[in-house]
Amino acid sequence: MLENGPRDQTQNQDQDQDQDHDHDHDHDHDHESFTIPLLSHQQRSFNSTSQVAIVGANLCPIESLDYEIAENDFFKQDWRTRGMIQNFQYIFMKWLLCFLIGVLVSLVGFCNNLAVENIAGVKFVITSNMMFAGRYGMAFLVFSLSNLVLTLLAAFITAFIAPAAAGSGIPEVKAYLNGVDAPGIFSLRTLIVKIVGSISAVSSSLLVGKAGPMVHTGACVASLLGQGGSRRYGLTWKWLRFFKNDRDRRDLVTCGSAAGIAAAFRAPVGGVLFALEEMASWWRSALLWRAFFTTAVVAIVLRALIDVCLSGKCGLFGKGGLIMFDVYSANASYHIADVPPVLVLGVIGGILGSLYNFLLDRILRVYNLINEKGSAYKIFIACTISIFTSCLLFGLPWFASCQPCPLHASEACPTIGRSGNYKKFQCPPGHYNDLASLIFNTNDDAIRNLFSMNTDSEFQHSTMLIFFVTCFILSIVSYGIVAPAGLFVPVIVTGASYGRFVGMLLGSHTNLNHGLYAVLGAASFLGGSMRMTVSLCVMILELTNNLLLLPLIMMVLLISKTVADAFNSGIYDLIMKAKGFPYLEAHAEPYMRQLTVADVVSGPLQLFHGIEKVSNIVHILKTTRHHGFPVIDEPPHSESPILCGLILRAHLIALLKKRAFLCAPMRIGVDAFRHFSSDDFAKKGLGNVVKIEDIELTDDEMEMFLDLHPFTNASPYTVVETMSLPKALILFREIGLRHLLVIPKISKRAPVVGILTRHDFMPEHILGLHPFLIRSRWKRLRFQLPRSLKLF
Amino acid sequence: MLENGPRDQTQNQDQDQDQDHDHDHDHDHDHESFTIPLLSHQQRSFNSTSQVAIVGANLCPIESLDYEIAENDFFKQDWRTRGMIQNFQYIFMKWLLCFLIGVLVSLVGFCNNLAVENIAGVKFVITSNMMFAGRYGMAFLVFSLSNLVLTLLAAFITAFIAPAAAGSGIPEVKAYLNGVDAPGIFSLRTLIVKIVGSISAVSSSLLVGKAGPMVHTGACVASLLGQGGSRRYGLTWKWLRFFKNDRDRRDLVTCGSAAGIAAAFRAPVGGVLFALEEMASWWRSALLWRAFFTTAVVAIVLRALIDVCLSGKCGLFGKGGLIMFDVYSANASYHIADVPPVLVLGVIGGILGSLYNFLLDRILRVYNLINEKGSAYKIFIACTISIFTSCLLFGLPWFASCQPCPLHASEACPTIGRSGNYKKFQCPPGHYNDLASLIFNTNDDAIRNLFSMNTDSEFQHSTMLIFFVTCFILSIVSYGIVAPAGLFVPVIVTGASYGRFVGMLLGSHTNLNHGLYAVLGAASFLGGSMRMTVSLCVMILELTNNLLLLPLIMMVLLISKTVADAFNSGIYDLIMKAKGFPYLEAHAEPYMRQLTVADVVSGPLQLFHGIEKVSNIVHILKTTRHHGFPVIDEPPHSESPILCGLILRAHLIALLKKRAFLCAPMRIGVDAFRHFSSDDFAKKGLGNVVKIEDIELTDDEMEMFLDLHPFTNASPYTVVETMSLPKALILFREIGLRHLLVIPKISKRAPVVGILTRHDFMPEHILGLHPFLIRSRWKRLRFQLPRSLKLF
Repeated sequence: MLENGPRDQTQNQDQDQDQDHDHDHDHDHDHESFTIPLLSHQQRSFNSTSQVAIVGANLCPIESLDYEIAENDFFKQDWRTRGMIQNFQYIFMKWLLCFLIGVLVSLVGFCNNLAVENIAGVKFVITSNMMFAGRYGMAFLVFSLSNLVLTLLAAFITAFIAPAAAGSGIPEVKAYLNGVDAPGIFSLRTLIVKIVGSISAVSSSLLVGKAGPMVHTGACVASLLGQGGSRRYGLTWKWLRFFKNDRDRRDLVTCGSAAGIAAAFRAPVGGVLFALEEMASWWRSALLWRAFFTTAVVAIVLRALIDVCLSGKCGLFGKGGLIMFDVYSANASYHIADVPPVLVLGVIGGILGSLYNFLLDRILRVYNLINEKGSAYKIFIACTISIFTSCLLFGLPWFASCQPCPLHASEACPTIGRSGNYKKFQCPPGHYNDLASLIFNTNDDAIRNLFSMNTDSEFQHSTMLIFFVTCFILSIVSYGIVAPAGLFVPVIVTGASYGRFVGMLLGSHTNLNHGLYAVLGAASFLGGSMRMTVSLCVMILELTNNLLLLPLIMMVLLISKTVADAFNSGIYDLIMKAKGFPYLEAHAEPYMRQLTVADVVSGPLQLFHGIEKVSNIVHILKTTRHHGFPVIDEPPHSESPILCGLILRAHLIALLKKRAFLCAPMRIGVDAFRHFSSDDFAKKGLGNVVKIEDIELTDDEMEMFLDLHPFTNASPYTVVETMSLPKALILFREIGLRHLLVIPKISKRAPVVGILTRHDFMPEHILGLHPFLIRSRWKRLRFQLPRSLKLF
Repeated sequence: MLENGPRDQTQNQDQDQDQDHDHDHDHDHDHESFTIPLLSHQQRSFNSTSQVAIVGANLCPIESLDYEIAENDFFKQDWRTRGMIQNFQYIFMKWLLCFLIGVLVSLVGFCNNLAVENIAGVKFVITSNMMFAGRYGMAFLVFSLSNLVLTLLAAFITAFIAPAAAGSGIPEVKAYLNGVDAPGIFSLRTLIVKIVGSISAVSSSLLVGKAGPMVHTGACVASLLGQGGSRRYGLTWKWLRFFKNDRDRRDLVTCGSAAGIAAAFRAPVGGVLFALEEMASWWRSALLWRAFFTTAVVAIVLRALIDVCLSGKCGLFGKGGLIMFDVYSANASYHIADVPPVLVLGVIGGILGSLYNFLLDRILRVYNLINEKGSAYKIFIACTISIFTSCLLFGLPWFASCQPCPLHASEACPTIGRSGNYKKFQCPPGHYNDLASLIFNTNDDAIRNLFSMNTDSEFQHSTMLIFFVTCFILSIVSYGIVAPAGLFVPVIVTGASYGRFVGMLLGSHTNLNHGLYAVLGAASFLGGSMRMTVSLCVMILELTNNLLLLPLIMMVLLISKTVADAFNSGIYDLIMKAKGFPYLEAHAEPYMRQLTVADVVSGPLQLFHGIEKVSNIVHILKTTRHHGFPVIDEPPHSESPILCGLILRAHLIALLKKRAFLCAPMRIGVDAFRHFSSDDFAKKGLGNVVKIEDIELTDDEMEMFLDLHPFTNASPYTVVETMSLPKALILFREIGLRHLLVIPKISKRAPVVGILTRHDFMPEHILGLHPFLIRSRWKRLRFQLPRSLKLF
């Protein structure tokens, strides 16, 4: 009943990918001029595996799409028929969908945690019991085999069912919100593989996180809800199929990614800020409110579910199920003397974070070279990493010496069960193995042990150093395997061990306890690697529940981000670049100031006339892949050549499909509104895009005419050819455009000289056209790494 | 030495007001068409007191101003000479200024608190001692006289020295960041009056807050630093006079307001989010980072200063000096059964909040009618309110019955000193007066008492009800007096008493203690009145230091905002509207969809030719108040009429002042760059704007010519006249434009048909031109109040 809802007609802005179907893996982009001339061979080959297809660039245009649509006569007429009730229906549906996203994402997040805690928990309990009985060989066998089986499960489903589910998913969602659509990232298949794969990968003791996959899961849920389910599997609900335009869908995806972080870390405010600071390319206050609502729903549902679990009905799901490292301590006081060591911690954390980014980027490129050779190689890498990890986790604690239990430990020592600060491992009764407490444990428990207070004498220096190095290496090699894998938790573990190590080195020279140093170390490593500020700060606060630390955490984050920015860019930007996504930055590069718009317009311009022959239209649509075409009127139809506007490929195809042709080149008037309904131009659901090749016309029809005037956007955004490139880029980016027409300075010439799309603003394209700019190019002062490292 | 810094040439975008000098109080706006046709008589008269002068609309253009400047030949040439070092100097100065803002604002905030705590503290200690000795009459005399003197001080300096310092200041700063410049809001005079006035007003037991004035103070500090001090008082530093363009100044002001909230509430993250959500009209991630840095500095400095005070060197400045109501309690648990009462709390809080907004708005209008009659009336109102407040505060506790002290009170009972839960007032030994504990106290202490845990049996129902009603009334009547007065603290006190009252009514039907209900009540009242979400949520968390409450607080905020939005808009929007600020909203009203750009372009268009006679320029500059003019070339200078671009009034005046005239109408080329330096076109510091009337030219000179081409922005943003109004508004608002040229659809006619400024987008202007739209106008479904209330 809502099928023909009030926003149906807002859907003509963008052509979407068939996300449920397999794509033809051509680059399906706006403009032929899309090239990535500066990519190295490695990058190119990486691209070919990630199969980016660029869809509309005019996506998520904050306030604009809403009105943009009303710009051709047909839609203007249609819009006037809309009523107030339909508008309220629309608003109600938006909130309802946000509510549903919140509920679903929190349920997924909870089940995710429940499954991980129970699977990993059973594994550790069985292994510990075997070790308690002295059957060490058997314990190793069970441990490594169960890890291998779980990793294989994750790798298999990812490699063969939904390759788009590999990795964190945050770069893909971020690129989508910027307007770059990687194929299949929001399909139902990807969603299911992401959830199952994430559970098994995390349970298999790989050093991978669950926050990134949760963000991707949240975005998937939002996208599927927004398009009314998955058509491929017949799971569609008519009443949900309400938002078929890109703007609404992107709003929902933004809320979904906020909900993902909220569910992963139980950090609702942090989730909103994460979506605001890191994910969204366009933002407005209405979206802030809606994202806040979504994460509030997540927080309330999670709170209720945890209430259920606190009564002990969730198996091994203990207090630590959903990450929340409560380090509150009334005496968390610090003085001016504590500031210098914290500064140093931040500086080194920033350096380590940028080093981490650099190494991860390189390893990813190497992996992709191997992965290209086939799925067998992907599975092989995953198995290798799993076995390597199992060996390290089980082997390293043997090198740590057993410690006698403290006399007045607050918990049982040694801990026989699953979690706790004092793992027995191979030690005699009354002793514990401090390295095993960290390494032979789930990541959440390791973080909790590192953050714990009043345990300053528990860990040895060597233990902490070994743990830090192990985590650093494992987190770098684990991310690239073909399985859902987040980066947050590995970075937090590594940073926390680094921070705690620094705290131990300082010893009695500081008032802060080692748990606080671990928190600050995690903050510095997060800042150095992910380069967020406010959102990380709030997330850490929500994780640790200690507001008194706020000034120190802010300081550390600022320093580590500043230091790390001197070397390279944030981890998600690096991954996006490596994947070849044409991400449109909000700011212009300095070298662009030397160019005008005319300098970057390229390729022959394909024009239509206001009244055009059908065969011409078919020919141009078949021979180009442009998504928008300027329409002009020339004498004798007008006194002088004038620009009528812009027509979209999708609308031309709709017109051709409707076969409402004219026998003679003449104008139609209000007739247009009788022949067509707004549904004909509605943005098609995924999997329904009509291609020009699918339309077959007779020779007679080919000789007929179409009046394009009523379907042309009569007031597209235009810029004059002498405008400087940065100014045009700002217009393009701020308004969220997809096509920008370039008009001549002197009106005597043709009324339009070119059309700009996203690809014309890509540095690769510009520097390809104007190679002389490369030497005058400077982006940011960055320390360059020695050449030897570059070759690696 | 930095005088001619790299950004000097970015300053031609906007003409600024002389903020230190008294203005001529005409409406000094861009465009004559500025009218407020829909304002009632009351509004008009209110406007005339607030003396709004509208300056540039092209302010704070996120990424655009940076490049916009390079658009005329002269600046293009100049820009190329800039070096990398100057760019780094610029970046360094930006961070240095943020650091200075942070340090200064935190110092001001600290001194503010120190002064208030000590002045109000001494007052209460003396009064309490007198009452202890039974000298009740004397106590009342001292109490009310000291209040009166303090109020008079605040009122006098505000009325006679800096009227712009009255009120909260948040609406003014918010309007400034949107591009509306109220005169004098950022002068040194205003800053000093604001600080002193706020201290004395808060100390005088008026129910006014200090957060709003702190935001204004922060913005003032930022603005003064950004312009290098106050020229009027000779307090300028050359090395600071680095940022003379609007964009940088607005960035600093945004950081300053974030620092204000951070210093007022010790809530650094809340401050950043407040600036983001409520204050800034344009936002970008670089600004997020810089605001975060500023508030981090505030947090660290405050932390250090409090460290000093904890050793007891700050007089009566106790733990409560800087608001921080630590309600942490390990057993802050709640269950599903607690949700329904909290929902009801949110709904009623929303209704109360919107009622509060409505009443405050009305009272403000009444006050302004009285205030118009002269300063004596203003002072009279202030005195009346002060005496009224004193009587209530001293009188009401007599109606409360004395309570016996609890047996195991955690603190002394009755409290003899200043703060504490158990005030003795007139009660016999061993008893306390619960109403006096709330009402005969500073606001901060009252809030702390309301938020306190494990005091469920301390207050009586009648006490809480009386306190709530008193606060509600006092906070409404106190805001409008001629003194610095914030709204945050009054709203929090009122909301907390409302929430605690609800908690007491529920009694044993709920697991939550009354302190938590007070926190939730404050949240609901804040949400209902101020209509923020994320920032309020974080502020409350930072104030109460209890993250476990998060889901409930989020829920309450969402509900109360939703409910209140059904009635009216947020309090700051109402105040801005009452003051007549032409605030440019980010979204278009639905009725605008029926209009095109051509429908709102008004007035005769003033054009210049590429080569123009001096007398023509002088005439047009003298007879209009436009800030920008289109420049066209016509035959014989070109083949057909073409649009050269846009020239700014400021640049024309600079050209006239330089007297580089040509004897014949011919083009100059590179000569332009020899005659002028970028300093000639630099944005003048406040108080230095040259007026056309100041330039005297001889008759000979009047007959000469000027070649405007090199000084014309050759690629202004343009829209075609058939573009729909919302689409043009989005362009105007998103890019942060000041002038938008309208070009004709058919190029045969004149190359430009009009120019759009901020005022052309104001609903009042549009509805004035097209009155038929009023009936088809609907903005939002809002419940209308009965007519009788409207007349009030």
